[in-house]
This record gives sequence, C-alpha cells and structure tokens, in this order.
Amino acid sequence: MSAFKDLMAFQHTTEALAQVAGRLGWDQETMMPRGAVDQRAEETAAMQSVLHSRRTDPRLGEWLAQIDASALGPVGQAQIRHIRKSYARALKVPADLAKTIARVTSRSQGQWAAARAAEDVKTFLPVLDEVVHLKRLEGQALADGGNVYDAMIDDYEPDMTAAELQAMFDAMRPRLVALRGAVLDKAPAPKLSGSFPEMAQMDMARKLAQTFGYDFAKGRIDKAVHPFSSGSGHDVRITTRTSADDPFNCFYSTIHEVGHACYEQGIDAAYALTPLGEGVSMGVHESQSRIYENQIGRSRAFTAWMFGEMRARFGDISVADAESLYKAVNAVHRGYIRTEADEVQYNLHIMLRFDLERALMAGDLEVADLEAAWNDRFKADFGYGVDKPSNGVLQDVHWSVGLFGYFPTYSLGNVYAGCLHTALRKAVPGLDADLALGDTSAATAWLRATVQIHGGLKTPAQTIADASGMTPSPEPLLTYLEEKFGAIYAL
Amino acid sequence: MSAFKDLMAFQHTTEALAQVAGRLGWDQETMMPRGAVDQRAEETAAMQSVLHSRRTDPRLGEWLAQIDASALGPVGQAQIRHIRKSYARALKVPADLAKTIARVTSRSQGQWAAARAAEDVKTFLPVLDEVVHLKRLEGQALADGGNVYDAMIDDYEPDMTAAELQAMFDAMRPRLVALRGAVLDKAPAPKLSGSFPEMAQMDMARKLAQTFGYDFAKGRIDKAVHPFSSGSGHDVRITTRTSADDPFNCFYSTIHEVGHACYEQGIDAAYALTPLGEGVSMGVHESQSRIYENQIGRSRAFTAWMFGEMRARFGDISVADAESLYKAVNAVHRGYIRTEADEVQYNLHIMLRFDLERALMAGDLEVADLEAAWNDRFKADFGYGVDKPSNGVLQDVHWSVGLFGYFPTYSLGNVYAGCLHTALRKAVPGLDADLALGDTSAATAWLRATVQIHGGLKTPAQTIADASGMTPSPEPLLTYLEEKFGAIYAL
Repeated sequence: MSAFKDLMAFQHTTEALAQVAGRLGWDQETMMPRGAVDQRAEETAAMQSVLHSRRTDPRLGEWLAQIDASALGPVGQAQIRHIRKSYARALKVPADLAKTIARVTSRSQGQWAAARAAEDVKTFLPVLDEVVHLKRLEGQALADGGNVYDAMIDDYEPDMTAAELQAMFDAMRPRLVALRGAVLDKAPAPKLSGSFPEMAQMDMARKLAQTFGYDFAKGRIDKAVHPFSSGSGHDVRITTRTSADDPFNCFYSTIHEVGHACYEQGIDAAYALTPLGEGVSMGVHESQSRIYENQIGRSRAFTAWMFGEMRARFGDISVADAESLYKAVNAVHRGYIRTEADEVQYNLHIMLRFDLERALMAGDLEVADLEAAWNDRFKADFGYGVDKPSNGVLQDVHWSVGLFGYFPTYSLGNVYAGCLHTALRKAVPGLDADLALGDTSAATAWLRATVQIHGGLKTPAQTIADASGMTPSPEPLLTYLEEKFGAIYAL
Repeated sequence: MSAFKDLMAFQHTTEALAQVAGRLGWDQETMMPRGAVDQRAEETAAMQSVLHSRRTDPRLGEWLAQIDASALGPVGQAQIRHIRKSYARALKVPADLAKTIARVTSRSQGQWAAARAAEDVKTFLPVLDEVVHLKRLEGQALADGGNVYDAMIDDYEPDMTAAELQAMFDAMRPRLVALRGAVLDKAPAPKLSGSFPEMAQMDMARKLAQTFGYDFAKGRIDKAVHPFSSGSGHDVRITTRTSADDPFNCFYSTIHEVGHACYEQGIDAAYALTPLGEGVSMGVHESQSRIYENQIGRSRAFTAWMFGEMRARFGDISVADAESLYKAVNAVHRGYIRTEADEVQYNLHIMLRFDLERALMAGDLEVADLEAAWNDRFKADFGYGVDKPSNGVLQDVHWSVGLFGYFPTYSLGNVYAGCLHTALRKAVPGLDADLALGDTSAATAWLRATVQIHGGLKTPAQTIADASGMTPSPEPLLTYLEEKFGAIYAL
C-alpha cells in the first residue's frame, strides 16, 4: 500500500498548512495591526491558493485510484472517505473562483465590522452583494446541477439536507413558540448589577476554562471582538470578550468556546494532522459547545457553584442567592441578538436566517432587499421591530465572510446536545452533586469518550447516534426545554 | 512581456507565503502554547516545503529564459536579478534536505533554550551536531565546489566573502584592543539603581519606538525571551524584554529592533510583496538597528532627553544628571554576553564567533570540541574565563537554528553604520539640538530617504556607498569610537 502511505504523507502536509491558515485567521482577529488589512488579504489568498492546489492535485486522483479501501481498517477507510470527498469537492470549484472568494472575504469581514459600527447598511451592500454572487457561483459549481443550498450545507454538515433541516425546524417551531408564549414577560428575572472589572472577568474566564478541562498547555485565551475557537490538535486557541455591565457575556462565551476547543483537544492524538483530526461537522461541534454552555453551564447545580465564585471575585452582585442567579442566567427575555438569546428563543433566530439565506442562494431574494426582508420577518417572528442594523441584518459576521449553510448547524447542534444530555444524565446519575462543586469532570470525560475522541472517524449523525444511543431528533431537546423552563417559571 | 508579468504574479504569492511563514516564527516566540512545539515543527516544515517547491518551480526557469532583462527599467532588472539568484540557490539544495533542516531547526531552538536554562551543554551537543551536519551539507550544495562558508555568508550578505570580512576584522582588531586597553576599568561608570516596574519599562519602550518613527498601525510590540523584528511591508512586529534591575536592556533592545523595523516599514510601498520589498542584506539591516541604537540612541544629546523621560517615569534612578546617564549607557565594562557588550568590545565578540563557525563549517572543528574552543578563545580575547555555558557557548540562539555566516553581518552593520553616521552628521549639522529634545525625525528621515526606501533595489555595498558618499570601510566607525570613548574617559 505505498499509494496509501504517499497519500497520507501528502495529506499530512496539507493538514499542517490548513492549521497555519487557520492560525492566520486567529492572528487577524487578535493580534494583527490595523494597517495590515490589505497585506493580510494577499497573504490569506496566497495560503488559500496553495491549499486549493493541493486539494486538486492530480496525484490525489492517482493515489485514490490505486488504493483498495476494502483492504484497509476502519480508520484507513474513514481517511480515504474524507480525502475522496474533499478531492471531489475541490475539483468542482475553479481555482480562480476559490482565490477570489478568499481575497474578497478576507477584506469583507473588516468592511462588515466597520459598517456595523457605523450602522451603515448601504455602504456594506455592494460588498455583501459581491460575496453572495461569488458564493452562488461556488454553490452552483458544487451542486453540479443539484440543489445549490444543499451543496453549501454539505461543507459544514456532511450528509445533511435543507429538507431534513426544514423538517427539524417544523417540529421545533410550534413547541418553542408555545413555550415562549407561556414564559416571556411572566416573571421579572433577577438582575445582576455591581462592579465587574475586566481583569476579574478574565480571571473568572480562565477559571471556567480550567473547570471544563481546557488544556492551557495546548491553547490560550485572548480577547477579541467575537468569541471563537481556532485550530486543532495541540494548538487550539479561544477568544472571549468582556462587557462592563454583563459578565455573563464573557463567562458563557468562554464556556461555549471551551466546548468547541475541548472537542478539538479531545480527539485521538493518533489522528493529528489527518482528515480525522478535527471535529466531524459544525453540528457535532456545536453540540459540544452548547452542552458545555447550556445543559451543564446553565444548570441549577453548576450555577450554584458559579454564584460562590462570582461573589468571591465581585463581592455584592445584587443577586441574593444561587437560585436567583440560576433564574438570571436562564431569563427568557426580549432581544434582537442571536448570540444573546435564551435557550427557548435561540432556534427561532436561526430559522429566520435559514429561510433568508436559502432564498438568497436560490436567487429568490436579492441583497438589495435583504434588510427589509430581515426586518419584516423579525417583526413577524418576535412581535417587535428591529431598531437599528446592528441589531438586525448587520448583527452576524457569517454572511460577510461567505458562510451560507452554516447557521442551521447551530440548531442542529442544539438538537444533538439534547440527545447527548439525555444519555449523559443516564450514564452519570450523580452529576448534579459534582456540578454543584464545580466539578464537570464526569460529564466532560463522558463526552470525550463517547463523542470527542472519535474526531472524523464516523459520520456526524452516526457519531451522535452511537454516543447517545438514539436516532437524533429534536424531541429530547424540546422536552428538556419544557421541563427546565416550566420549572423556572412555575408553569 | 507577459513572461515578466506571470513571473511577478507567481513571485507575489511566494512573497506573501514567506510573510506567513515569518509570522509563524513570530507566533512561536510570543504566543504559541508550550505544548504545541511538535505540531509547530510540522507546520513550519510544511510551509518551508511549499516555499521550497515554489522557489524551485520549473516555470521560474522558463519565465527567466524568456525575459530580456535589458528591456526592463532598473526596478525590473533588480527584480529579475533577485529572482534569478534565489532560483539558482534553491535548485542547489535538495528538497528533502531543505525540509529536514526546517523541521530540525524548528525543534532545536526550544532545545537550545532548555539547555541554556539548565546550563546543560551535554544534552544539547547531539542536537547542535545534527544542525551543523545538515548545514554543512547545505553549504556544500550551495558552494558547488567553491568555499562552503562563503556560500553561507551569501545567504545573509550577498556578494560578501570571508576574505573581505577577514580583512575588515584585521583592520579593526588592533585599534579596538588598544581602545579597550585604554579605557577598561579606568573610571567606574555611574550605576543605575531604583525601581523599574515592568509596565513603566514597556511604556517607555513604546515611547521610544514612537520617538524613532515606528508606525504602530503597521506593527506591534510584544515581550519575548529574545528581542527581534519580524515581517515586511505593512506588518512589521517587534519584540522586547524587560529586566527588573536593568531597564537599559529593554530600552536599547527596543531601539535596536525599531531600527530594523523602520527599515522594513520605510521601503517603497511599490515594492511590497516583491523581492525588493525587504531589507537588502543583514549587514545593511544591522546598520539601521545599530545607528538607531548607538550613534543616535547612545549619543550625549539623546541620552540627555532620555534622562528626563526616565526621571519622569521612575523617579530617583541614582544617576545624578544627564552627563552621568550618558556615561552609564556607554560604560566599557567586563562581561560575557555579546548582546550586552559596549560599542568598543562588541566586534571582538563577533570575531570569536566568526573564527569558530568558519572552522565548524570547514570541518576543522567538531561540535564535541566547541565548548572548549569557545572557552579557550574567550580567555585569550578577553582575559578572563567563561563561568558557565549560558555565558559562553550557549549564549546565542543563532547556531541552534542553523544561522552560520550570520554573525559577521553584525560587525559589517556596525561598519556601515559608521559610514552612514559620518554622512548623516554632514547632512544634518544641527542634529544634536533635535536629539536633545527627543526629536530623531531629521535623522530617521535622512536614513529613510538615503537607505531604507530603496529596499532591495541596489546591492548592499552600493546601497551604503550611495547613501554615505564613500566606499564602505571600518575607518569612520573606528574614528567615531576613538573620539567618543576618548572623550568619555578623558584620554
């Protein structure tokens, strides 16, 4: 099997270069001097051009033709499956288009940030229009006559389709809307107030990361405008942010990104710098970040421990006891911003984006009409109007950098987290007693052993099915939400 | 000239990738988590392998063959000269050797740092032996039957030879030794003491960088174990370090690196991401860092301004007046460490390394005997014995990462700085009045216009000759040193 060996050696270099390209993205958001934007766009385009050449290298086709996958073990077969898929995908996208997308989206992120800060949709429209145009072209190339949006989803969630997601959302919407109707504005949530110095917030963020098992020897935490996790293997970095009035923003962003990072850090080291060495899909990734953040991090038991940690760091926080803090971090509240939404309403924000971006990619909606479409839909779904673009169509970075087909994986991650949480509670019946002491190790060890360690070995749905012992469905999530918020709001 | 256009487009991508590789090195020294060392070695090797493929790409040969350089202007001709040279060089080194060197030297730097911290030469010897072995092989491939060490010098200082450097050192040694003999231990230098908090040192470092014209919009300053400058064009980053007892370490390291960085930032923007878009040689680079640091930064006029700035930040510094501070920063003192050496003795440290590394590369000295050779030579040159490896053979990072032929460019830079300083003083007769107010702008503007802006347009020697109006020689430096230290020590 010298073809297999040669292929894996070639792939090893490609994976290492992909790590470098990812770190360049991290640098851009954390360290890069502001005057370097244009040069960075050239550097990013150069890296993407190298990666594109390697992913379309004719030798890949020759090696793949020579390899008899049936003679390989399950790990080798999974490697070949990933490489074959990546090669087929890369061949479909013309090199010039890939390079143009890389260059345009490297700049457009900064342009989006400036537009958002200035509440200036108009200036940003031509930029977004170019991105949408390019991504439509890419989607058409990928779909090869099939459904463009399905082809785009496949980049983030292999084997998933818009029709399946639509069915999932159809099952979720009525129960979420009913739950929201029952609890929203029913009881004023306890409100945090006090002094939350940035240094103390970052100290608490580090403590939380450690508590959830993040390995600082293979990562670091920095501040950035947007929290994210970046990198695989032994160099998985996260960012967070602080807000003077709202330390929960920092704490739960941190726990969320730690979930992503622990997934990457938890993958079998034998898969490092191979296609199996990173999270298998965005949906499975989000299942980890969400279960860390919500089912564990916003549980009554864990928030009881957090109450003590916060009192120790911040003194009087105007929240009388642990039970009040639990209610504060689980308040179902009005708001425009997806990332600040409560567990009940979060997926409604995703459904809005799912429908709009499908229409954009299908050509049924043009960028010129996007803001109006957003505002109309928001009013219809939430009952109140968007007050400014940064609370509406400009709130998320995703579309500016060409991430279409990505949003629904957030909801899929919530659904997956619901399945995993049900199984976790069965597997670790005494979990709450641990969490009340700030000990997440039984939960994170279970997630590591059942989900994280496998990396890209199985398909996303199989990964969740094997770990949870059930066919993934929204039912466990909806039941969990109804029980949890029913109790909080004493329905 | 479509061949020229294609060549330059290809080169543009290569230059952008080289910037990415450089930034990866910066990250390794400033940001990388310690557990990522092995993965980083793979990433670095992957980048070097990509760069090596591009630098040996057969299309380069085809384009170069098609281009009639005489039909190009001077800028185009210089571009072709650089690319032709780089292509010829790259073809000489086998790809596997280049990749192995990249991988080994990525790890060896950390191994050197650990060995130095543990004063453990023995553990480090096999590592260094491998580096020396690999670099000899590379040198032999580059020399192609000629002088191995000359071939290695050429990587850092094009058109320079060991024989020319030897002649330069021969001219310098007796006068430097005589000067040292006349001043060493003659008068106790005023000694700084006080409280120098890290934050205040870094604040002063930023102030100094600004004072010397460093553009923070296109760079940043971080702390690292070793001060360095990294990157070209619009993203030129520097590092510095702080020492609780010795703020001069921080301040002069900063000014030194600012000299390097201002050179890169000062190059004609039209040359960005081309072979002309970076400093033309290490010697010319060092001429900028040294003239910023010494001829300007350690001048009587500038240190008078520094005295005020230091008093404002640190209060009582146990140095009574500006004149005493001038003497303190120019004290000719005993010491083992090259980077802490005074202007009089610095080049003697280089001569020691120059002779030892020539012998190493020629095979006249083996790594097993290197520590003894260093210690014998140090005793002979400085009159006292090395007390521990971190003060001797383990003090510099260079050899651990395969930089052979690099050390002599430091002295060459001093010599070039001497020539430039003579011309600068003629061009800006009132400079000292500016410097006494902390205004370096006339000096830096002159250096920018005469040296920095040209980037790689001319040869190194021509760059200095045109800027200084003289054929480069050690004479101006030696005269400057004799006058300056003669006055300080009242000879």
